[in-house]
Parts: sequence; structure tokens; C-alpha cells
Amino acid sequence: MQFIYRLTVILVVLSTSLAKGQNGIVVFQSDFGLKDGAVSAMKGVALGVSPSLKLEDLTHEIPAYNIWEAAYRLHQTVPYYPKGTVFVSVCDPGVGTERRSVVMLTKSGHYIVTPDNGTLTLLAEHLGIAEVRTIDEAINRLKNSGASYTFHGRDVYAYTAARLAAHIIRFQQIGPKLTSDIVRLDYQKAVYKKEGVVQGNIPVLDVQYGNVWSNIPRTLIDQLGVKSGESVRVQIFHGDTTLYNKTVRLVNTFGEAASGDDVAYMNSLLNFSIAVNQGNFSEKYNVMSGPAWTIVVGK
Amino acid sequence: MQFIYRLTVILVVLSTSLAKGQNGIVVFQSDFGLKDGAVSAMKGVALGVSPSLKLEDLTHEIPAYNIWEAAYRLHQTVPYYPKGTVFVSVCDPGVGTERRSVVMLTKSGHYIVTPDNGTLTLLAEHLGIAEVRTIDEAINRLKNSGASYTFHGRDVYAYTAARLAAHIIRFQQIGPKLTSDIVRLDYQKAVYKKEGVVQGNIPVLDVQYGNVWSNIPRTLIDQLGVKSGESVRVQIFHGDTTLYNKTVRLVNTFGEAASGDDVAYMNSLLNFSIAVNQGNFSEKYNVMSGPAWTIVVGK
Amino acid sequence: MQFIYRLTVILVVLSTSLAKGQNGIVVFQSDFGLKDGAVSAMKGVALGVSPSLKLEDLTHEIPAYNIWEAAYRLHQTVPYYPKGTVFVSVCDPGVGTERRSVVMLTKSGHYIVTPDNGTLTLLAEHLGIAEVRTIDEAINRLKNSGASYTFHGRDVYAYTAARLAAHIIRFQQIGPKLTSDIVRLDYQKAVYKKEGVVQGNIPVLDVQYGNVWSNIPRTLIDQLGVKSGESVRVQIFHGDTTLYNKTVRLVNTFGEAASGDDVAYMNSLLNFSIAVNQGNFSEKYNVMSGPAWTIVVGK
Repeated sequence: MQFIYRLTVILVVLSTSLAKGQNGIVVFQSDFGLKDGAVSAMKGVALGVSPSLKLEDLTHEIPAYNIWEAAYRLHQTVPYYPKGTVFVSVCDPGVGTERRSVVMLTKSGHYIVTPDNGTLTLLAEHLGIAEVRTIDEAINRLKNSGASYTFHGRDVYAYTAARLAAHIIRFQQIGPKLTSDIVRLDYQKAVYKKEGVVQGNIPVLDVQYGNVWSNIPRTLIDQLGVKSGESVRVQIFHGDTTLYNKTVRLVNTFGEAASGDDVAYMNSLLNFSIAVNQGNFSEKYNVMSGPAWTIVVGK
Repeated sequence: MQFIYRLTVILVVLSTSLAKGQNGIVVFQSDFGLKDGAVSAMKGVALGVSPSLKLEDLTHEIPAYNIWEAAYRLHQTVPYYPKGTVFVSVCDPGVGTERRSVVMLTKSGHYIVTPDNGTLTLLAEHLGIAEVRTIDEAINRLKNSGASYTFHGRDVYAYTAARLAAHIIRFQQIGPKLTSDIVRLDYQKAVYKKEGVVQGNIPVLDVQYGNVWSNIPRTLIDQLGVKSGESVRVQIFHGDTTLYNKTVRLVNTFGEAASGDDVAYMNSLLNFSIAVNQGNFSEKYNVMSGPAWTIVVGK
Repeated sequence: MQFIYRLTVILVVLSTSLAKGQNGIVVFQSDFGLKDGAVSAMKGVALGVSPSLKLEDLTHEIPAYNIWEAAYRLHQTVPYYPKGTVFVSVCDPGVGTERRSVVMLTKSGHYIVTPDNGTLTLLAEHLGIAEVRTIDEAINRLKNSGASYTFHGRDVYAYTAARLAAHIIRFQQIGPKLTSDIVRLDYQKAVYKKEGVVQGNIPVLDVQYGNVWSNIPRTLIDQLGVKSGESVRVQIFHGDTTLYNKTVRLVNTFGEAASGDDVAYMNSLLNFSIAVNQGNFSEKYNVMSGPAWTIVVGK
């Protein structure tokens, strides 16, 4: 009977774990690159907490110190993971300073462990904040790592994420509830500018193919009254300089256009985007991304 | 007793799963690169289907739109995975067009989920086709993803592969059996040209080291009557232009040659290859890969 | 009862496995890059041995043939993984020659499967050697791989590591105990040179950010009597050429300095390091790493 009792305990613990929300998955993002041992050291710390965790990567090629891109890549990816997944994002130019370390629980049930430096801007807006807690490093820090000031990704974030994902601590044990707002980056939102014209920003490039993504959602394009197969006027500015001003066709898929044609399309996040079919738009027209870039779409 | 009954059900389900062939492993390949969230979004979808899947990568550095290289990397890697592994390959210049989406089961018991655009050419030839089924997107597509036309890797392929690997669907539930042949890329096969001469193609480079791989198998070199330690005449052509014409020694291992020597060897797939020992053959002689490249080996 | 007996067997096997030391985790490092299928083929072989292994990566971007950097990345990462983790390191310019293939068990309980070519230098020194065994390829080699001479990473190392991690073989079954010493690379150790001056080497760069890491430990800096917030004189030489000679402040964190300032700090391994805050020190001053580089720190 003792044997069955133990099994029962194991199964109850298992089902309790599943009920709590976390699913044992930890996903890592950073600006560390993959050329050295930094990412792997974070994973070693996580597996030291619990060897049964499942570790995945978002990307480690965030350009160094580029908090905006870290925010965008989370926005692009987090919603596709199951509820309860714990994300670690380490793009941390202020490591070791007084910037807060936090864990945000979104309304969609995802956890993000990160410095509070703007990384959470887009997720907070798109998924909604359920609760944010400041990491209490007195309890949530790798043992004997106190002498290191420059690698919180390993010593604090990976360690805390692993303990949360493995149910060693509950969300309430992260540390005190944040009462003020998180740090939010300022950016140009997409707007319906005037009759027949919408305007937005270029948050990132689809770097692998050189396609240009805007933050103008399909709903605004629908409001313009433009349908797939019709043409739109697209202007792209860097500050006051015009880099692009052409009429292009809005297609559902690249297969509808000839190779080398400029085409507008809705990207995988359903935002207005522009590409050279089987070419590189960004290189051809010297278009990059960031707060200084504006895109205007007219009927 | 109810408790034991439940345990029995769990164990029976587990053992049935293992018996079915699939092993819960999904391996991803793409031309997406690792700089953004695309690969990770595919993995999130798979873990959303079943958090107990084991996700691995082949490579995500297939040059953009290079279907031939996608075909070759599968050929190089699939046979080393256990039976029942499900591969997802997304090199998909025709995404959103009428090109078919399929799952091929090889005679070796591996599944490959991919657009039917030539990606399966080499596996079909080397491992053999057991059966190919067209993906029925009416049932095998991520819920609420119908508005996105440009990311079938996430919305259809990762989702379908995960459901197959997790035994949520059987192979027969992928969709209808393909009755016509798969799309096959044309390429120059290795042949015994005439007495003492074999000829083949350069399908890929061993990019990290600059070594040049041919598609001439060891059996043809044996037929030539050349043994390890002996010399061969190697000519390399791009179209009609000769880029290389030298006599080199066929070695078993680079350790047999001096640093900087040109050496011929059988690569890890047992195909005839040529390298500069501890140097970069491809750069030194401007030799690349693709259908236009011919390699001739004479006794 | 038979049912409960089977469950007992399963649980006993599980607990025995855990007791043995290995934890089912295999971590891969190589100089293969991620552009082809080589890394994935190694993982396929490992999962063919046991699909329940957990496979992670250290890095695959070790510069080709750079054994020193392979040694350093292991040193940087291995201690952060739990006891019993099995590492595979394949930087193997002598593949196929008479160089030994070994498995080292460190005093910290980590296993490293590697060619014995210097890769183990730093781990042997920092973690200590418990025992080294030479791989007996007559038993520890992938079936039917005997005709391939150039990919021991796949055919011998991944296969052996997986069998060790999955408890199919015990450490004693790797092969005979090594009675001579392992191969060790020569390098310039950090020393207290004279009153107020310590000297060391630049083993690697923090490549992603261009920071320069020395091998001078915090204990030597403490011996100098320099405290955080104070200034030190830093000289960097390549052979006899001076590339850097300035007074910089030793900070705990980059946040204490202005953007663009040169700062000295203790890195995540607690070694003396120097950086341009939010800039690239290595590029700015043409400082690289390797045996020819000397760094001198004075009070």
C-alpha cells in the first residue's frame, strides 16, 4: 500500500503542477550571439535547478543593446507558445545598475523574466499585463554568484525562470508586486492619418529576406478600403528624406507576382509589409528599421 | 482499483504510442536564419500541440529559396535519426501558391513535412518512398491562422508535424494519398564515363572548411581501381571553364598529408571530395557548387 | 500483482539511473558551424541510442581547428551544468590520425568526450581530473560506420556520449584507463610579476561585444590592493608591440561609467577584463586574443 501511496503522491504532484499553469518550458532570448558559452551557461544553470525542464530558444541574435528589437521579437513569438511558458529575455545594457529585474505575467498566461528596460513594451500592449513582480535577489539568485556583477542572465534570470517553471517557487515568491508602471519605449503608432491615408512605423526588417515590415495592422488597411489584388501608393521616409515612392499591388502571396516585382502583402503577424519578390527590398532601396522610419500607405 | 485502472490506461496509451512508429521527435529545417522569431514560433506551435515533444534542428541557414540545398541537407542527415522521426523542411519560395504541401513516409520509416517543390528529390531516391500524402489544410491547420498566407511553416507544417509526432493524427489522416509523382529536381548524376574516368556534380560545399564535395560514390571510385594512397587526376569545370586540373593523392584522413596540400578523400557520406589540408579549397580555386559544376576524376 | 511488479521495476530502474551520476543530458560543442547537417547528424545518432536523452549545445562556432578556444569555452561553461552531464567537444584537426579519443571524468563529476589534442587543458586544471579513459572503438562506434574516416564526431563521440549518458555503458566500459597524461596546451599563466604589477594573457575575446578578457583572476587583483572605483594602469602587448597603455577605472558594472568610456571590470568568470562601455574595445584598439597577447595591470 505504501507503494501505491507513493505513486499517488507522484501523480498528484504532477497534476497539481499542470494545473498551476507553468508547463516546464523555458524559452531563452538574448543579444549574446552563439559564438561563446554564455547562452549555454544559462541553460546549464536552468538544468541544475531541474533536469526535466524543456529548454528552447527564441533568438540570440538581437543586435547588441537593441532593446526595441528584443521587445519586437517577443511580440512576434510569445503568443505562439502554450500558456504557462516562461521566457527569459536578456538584452541588458544596464546590467548591474539600479534598473529593476522583473517577471511579468501576461493576461494570456505567459511569464517573461527580464530587466525592466523597455523589453516588455509591446507584449504589455498586445497581450495585456496580469501582474508584474520585482525579482528579490536575496532569494532568487544562483548560490555563490554574488561576486559576479555582469551576468544577471545566468545568475538571476535563468535561475529564477527555471525555479518558476519547475514549480520550486510560485509566482508570488518572485518578490514584491510592482506598483508603478513598467518602463515603456516610445514609438510611432499606426494611425488613420486622413481620408484614404494611413501612416505607421517600420519596427523591424524581415532580415533573412530583406522584406520591410510596418506596424500598420490589417484592420487599418481594411479601413482604407483596399482589397487584395488592388494597388496602393507606398511612401517610405527616413526623417524627412523620401526613400521610396511607388504604386505597388497588394497580393495575398508572392506567387501572384513576377520574380523581381515590388509587392505589398500582409505579413505573418498580419501587418502591412513590402518586398521585392525573390529579391531584397531593404538593400535595393536602402530602407532600414527604427523609430526614425515612417511608412505612408495611400489608396 | 480505479486508480490502478487509470495507470493501466496511461501505460497502454504510452506503449501503443511507441508501437505506432513515431517517437515524439520533430526536427526542423528552414531558410529562415536564426535572427528573428520565425523558427521559435514554429516550435511554440508544436509545443502547443503537445508539450512533451522533443524538438531538434537540422539547419536554418539554407540559403534563401535554395531548394536544392534543402534537399541535400535532408539527404545528409535524415538517415542518422531513429525511425519514426518527423522532419519539417520549410524552403518555400512558392508559399501561398498552388504548390502542394505533403508528408512523405520513406521506406526507412522517416516522415518529412514540406512543400512539394523538389525538396524531397534526394531522399526519395536514396531512402525510397513508402507513401506520400497531401496535407488537407481544412483539418491540418493551426486554429485561427486562416488570415495569414505567408507562413505555412508555422500555420500548417509545424502544426501538422507535431500532431503526427504526438499521435493526435495517424499518417492516413494527413490527407489524400498522392497518386502522381512528387516534384523532382533535375541534376547531373555520377557516371562511369569511359575507361578510367568517372564524372559527377558538386552538389554542395562543406561550407565551414571550404572543402568540395562531389556526388561520386565510393563504389565508382572502387570501379576506377584507385586505392587509398594512390594519385588521381581531378578536373573541375564551371560550364566549359576549367578551374582546377591537378593530380592529387587519395587519403583516408587529413593526417596523412602535410598542411596546405591538396588532398582527395571520401567524405562522411562516402562521396569523393577534395580539400586543402587545413586550408580552404573553395576560396583558393574559386570553386562553388550547383548544377553548372562538373568534376571529373581519372586514374 | 504482475502489473505492480512491472511498475516497481520501472521505478527502480529510474532511480538507479539517477543514482549512477549521469543525468541523461548531452551537451555538444564543435567547430562545424550550423550551416549544414553535421551537428544534427550527431544528435540523430544520440537519439538513435536513446530517444529520451536531453540534448543541448555549447557552441558550434569555435573557429575552425582552434583547439585553444574549444578548451576555453568548455572552461567557461561546464561548471554551470549539473553533475553527470556528458559533453561532446569536436574540434579535431587530426581526425583519422593516431591522436587518442578519450573521455575525461572531472573531479566535479562532469564527463567530456573529445579527441585528446589539448581540448581538456583548462578543465583538467580548473576542475581536476578524476579519471581519463581511452575510447575503445572496437565496441564504442556506430554500427556500419567503419568505412568513414573523417567524422568521428558522429560515428564515435556522439555515439559513445549517448551510450554513457543513457547508462547503456558504464564509464569503465569506455575503454582502458589512460596511464600517461592528457595532451596539454602551453599558455602564459597569470602571475604576480613584481610589487604592484600583475601580468597575464588574453585567452579569448567576448566576441559579441568586443570586450577583452584576461586570465588574471580576482585574487591577483585583490593582491595588488586595487578596489572597485579605483584606477589601474593597463598595458596590452602583441609580442613586443604595445597596443594599449592607459589608466582606466575598475568598475563593478558598466552602469557606473559614461557611454564610450574605457572601463576595467571583473567578467562573469571573475577574471580582469577591459571594455569600451557600449562600444567595441577589440576593434577600437586592434586587440585580439591568443598566446602572443600579454596584458599587464599596474597599481
